[in-house]
Formats: sequence, structure tokens, C-alpha cells
Amino acid sequence: MTTQEVADTLVKLCSAGKLDEAMRTLYSPDIVSMEAGAPPGQSRESKGLEACLAKGQWWVANHEVHSSKVEGPLVACSHFAVAFKFDVTFKPQDKRFVMEEVAVYKVAGGKIVYEEFFYNM
Amino acid sequence: MTTQEVADTLVKLCSAGKLDEAMRTLYSPDIVSMEAGAPPGQSRESKGLEACLAKGQWWVANHEVHSSKVEGPLVACSHFAVAFKFDVTFKPQDKRFVMEEVAVYKVAGGKIVYEEFFYNM
Repeated sequence: MTTQEVADTLVKLCSAGKLDEAMRTLYSPDIVSMEAGAPPGQSRESKGLEACLAKGQWWVANHEVHSSKVEGPLVACSHFAVAFKFDVTFKPQDKRFVMEEVAVYKVAGGKIVYEEFFYNM
Repeated sequence: MTTQEVADTLVKLCSAGKLDEAMRTLYSPDIVSMEAGAPPGQSRESKGLEACLAKGQWWVANHEVHSSKVEGPLVACSHFAVAFKFDVTFKPQDKRFVMEEVAVYKVAGGKIVYEEFFYNM
């Protein structure tokens, strides 16, 4: 797949709430995922598909999604950007908030090999 | 200015080739600018408006721009993304190439305080 095709597929699957399928279909086994920040003692960086799937599954299990919007992609050669906007409740604290972030992805060999999320901590 | 207003102004000025004006108008004096890579012995990171202006002026002086396109912005709270596509000749080597990159910007206090560029080295 081209970067454009990977980007369009990611947006389509994430818009349908199919985060797990997006990762299994589009991510390289060696994906590196970088958050804007990390909890104390943990890393910003997750390495490998299994770690990303686990991070995604934790997110899905701990948030009730009231509405979501995926904007983009903006494609530039090997990279693309997407904006995510979620109105969610963090279930462990019953706390509702709006979460907006820019995500940048790098594609190589038809797979996503790097992702980085930008948001305020 | 809101993030959306900063983003729209940056796209408008860059589309008009007014990179210098975009920086002088929109960048914080303490801007941090991060390239995808650096020449040997140099840093990926530039700090401060003067360093960014100098980097921009070097780019303008050394490239003949045949065409350019600025796509976006994608805005998410404090951050936004833009895609740049340039068909340029690097004048010192008379070498024509297409350069595409994703740029992510962080806005605080109505100014751009951080920018990072994503492209293949």
C-alpha cells in the first residue's frame, strides 16, 4: 500500500472505532509508538505490535466514548498526519473530558513503522 | 490568537512564500525547532527566533522554488499539522528534487513555541 492508502485505511478504521483492526492490519511488527508524555517511571515509547495492541486495549477498556472525530489525513511522501478528537469518560474516575491530539505516522514497506502523538500534558 | 487562527495565518503566509513574515509574526522568541535529522556535528534542534530566521533565510537563499503547496491545517487543541510540498532546485548543486514533509506545531499564549518536521532523510 502507498502512504495515501495506509492513511486512508487508518482514518476509515479509526472513524469506525476499529482501533485494534487498524493496528493488526496496518502496523509493522516493529512499530515504535511515542506518546507526548509518560506516567512517572514509565517510558514515552512503546516498541512492537503487541505493546501497541495492549496500550490500545487499555485505552478502550478504560474510556467510554461519547463521540469521536478523525480528521485528515495530510499525506507527505512517507509520512502522514491525522487529528483525533474524543469526548470521553475515563471510567476509573468517572471523569468526562475532551481529548484532542495530532498524530504523525511514518510508513515504510506499506506498513506503519512509527507513530507519535502530540497533545498537552 | 487561537490555535486555529495561528494555523490559518501560517498556511496563508507560507502559501504566499512569506516564510520570514510568518516567523516574525507567529513565532515565540523562545521557539524550539526540530528537524528530522541534522548534518554531521550539528544539532536537530534550533532554539530561538533568530536561529529559526537564519535557518529559513539559508533555505530561501539556497533553493529555487518551481512550485509549492501547503496543505492543512489539521488543528487539535494546542497543536496543528501542515503538509508542505516543494518542487525545488538546490542551487549550490543545481539539483532539482521534490521535498515533502509533515510539520507539527505547538501553540501557547497565541504564539508558536515548538515545531517539528517529519520527512525521510
